[in-house]
Amino acid sequence: MGENAQRSTRGSLLEKEIGTRRQRAANWFQSLRDEVRAHCEFLEDLHETGPLADRAPGRFEVRATVRQGTGDPGGGIMSIMRDGRVFEKVGVNVSTVHGRLDSRMLTSLTARRDIPGLKQDPRFWASGISLVAHMNSPRVPAVHMNTRMFWTPVATWFGGGIDLNPVLENPDDTNRFHRALQEICERHDPDYYAQFRDWADRYFWIPHRQEARGAGGIFFDDLDSGDGDADFAFVQSVGRAFGEVWLPIAEQRRFEAWTEAEREIQLIARGRYAEFNLLYDRGTRFGLESGHDVDAVLMSMPPVARWR
Amino acid sequence: MGENAQRSTRGSLLEKEIGTRRQRAANWFQSLRDEVRAHCEFLEDLHETGPLADRAPGRFEVRATVRQGTGDPGGGIMSIMRDGRVFEKVGVNVSTVHGRLDSRMLTSLTARRDIPGLKQDPRFWASGISLVAHMNSPRVPAVHMNTRMFWTPVATWFGGGIDLNPVLENPDDTNRFHRALQEICERHDPDYYAQFRDWADRYFWIPHRQEARGAGGIFFDDLDSGDGDADFAFVQSVGRAFGEVWLPIAEQRRFEAWTEAEREIQLIARGRYAEFNLLYDRGTRFGLESGHDVDAVLMSMPPVARWR
Repeated sequence: MGENAQRSTRGSLLEKEIGTRRQRAANWFQSLRDEVRAHCEFLEDLHETGPLADRAPGRFEVRATVRQGTGDPGGGIMSIMRDGRVFEKVGVNVSTVHGRLDSRMLTSLTARRDIPGLKQDPRFWASGISLVAHMNSPRVPAVHMNTRMFWTPVATWFGGGIDLNPVLENPDDTNRFHRALQEICERHDPDYYAQFRDWADRYFWIPHRQEARGAGGIFFDDLDSGDGDADFAFVQSVGRAFGEVWLPIAEQRRFEAWTEAEREIQLIARGRYAEFNLLYDRGTRFGLESGHDVDAVLMSMPPVARWR
Repeated sequence: MGENAQRSTRGSLLEKEIGTRRQRAANWFQSLRDEVRAHCEFLEDLHETGPLADRAPGRFEVRATVRQGTGDPGGGIMSIMRDGRVFEKVGVNVSTVHGRLDSRMLTSLTARRDIPGLKQDPRFWASGISLVAHMNSPRVPAVHMNTRMFWTPVATWFGGGIDLNPVLENPDDTNRFHRALQEICERHDPDYYAQFRDWADRYFWIPHRQEARGAGGIFFDDLDSGDGDADFAFVQSVGRAFGEVWLPIAEQRRFEAWTEAEREIQLIARGRYAEFNLLYDRGTRFGLESGHDVDAVLMSMPPVARWR
């Protein structure tokens, strides 16, 4: 009792509070994963007429992913559906990892130059979900969604986003996607859409080609407004945008037939996607550098890509 | 006359001498390019029976490549053959570039940590040839060859190598390749083969997968023995190894039929090849960072690759 009372300092209450917040986020990323998988399988079942409808509806294969490291470095669950009716490959990873950061890992994981105090106590904890969907049809836009919570003893923040990767230009889909994201953002903060749309435009940029990866969306990192509940609520909205915003676009486009020439354009676009992920994506770099399961880190890679 | 006599210091004679050596190397890379292209087209013509022999023999498309930069930054010539009878894609680049190095470029271009004196005078000149052959048949090993000369005011060196990238394990081909390289190296220096074979093993390594890219070969950089003629002669031998060592292996294997399963293994192996090139290859990084023609830098990318 006496010992317990001593431990109940403000510091340990805060640690407990943060532990609860972390657990809540980790749980939510898992329930979003379940929701997202259900959306994808629903679309597969729904697609009973149209291109490739003669295939069996796609289903997810699920396996645990492990992170290399001493002690208990954490891990995750990777769910991949391949060669479905609508999805050529869709992967959904959730992971919760922890350990000690080195400076190389730090430059990959945050837009900040430095996190003061982290040298003294380099512990970190991170949990998140990431989704990448590569579609059979060049007329159904590919999509990427990712949300995550990051904790260190001196800072806690959220990051994430969702962005559209159409292979053929389709201003209708792109406008619809952006308008819906704007609406979602405005429920939370009037500045978020403009700010995070611009961030996505800067982030999803392939400098060596001087071209964008896809049609943008929203992207944010280091989100710590001071109101953890509000930040978490925003992150949840971004995660749900996969079902609310992208799914209806895919549902509509799935009937359209495509040509060999359009497929070719899709494979070339996927080559650019692969270039971005391997050369510039911070999540990929952080994953490879922090020793996370290679297959999970590279889950985002396209099923087939082409370079001329 | 008086002015000319004044200029004829030891320094300017040395500059002239180096200019001649640079020109000689650049010329040779171009003549090797012609030789290599002739070898490839010869193999295409030769393949009148066997898999895909009903196709027209492949021919090279040639175009000039430009480097971004002020003044005259140099450029090159890219030759690509696609969808031939034997070659699915083979690219041969020659380029001669010059300008000023920044520190980022420096870390990509040499294994050395630093080149003393370069801060005061950061001029550089580089010329080289690089070849990557991706084959239709998973039973014909892919191959990569590259040789180059690099000049700065304080150091001149050669680099290069040739390495085999079989998709299916074939100890006969691999042993034959290595034995032939050993013989070539031993004509120049008794230590070169062991030294440069080990260097290739270290260099062509995919750390995040803990696996080698291919079956090795030889790789060297910063070669400056003090005898520039001897170094250049060695570089020439390495360049000729494409025709002397790889070509006879391909010539023999081209008749073998392959299965869909073997093709699948080939496409997965090419995904690993793409990962290596984008994540680790110094030539690729130097090319992208120094603003060279993107298509030329990424000429090495596989025509099709797959990720599961």
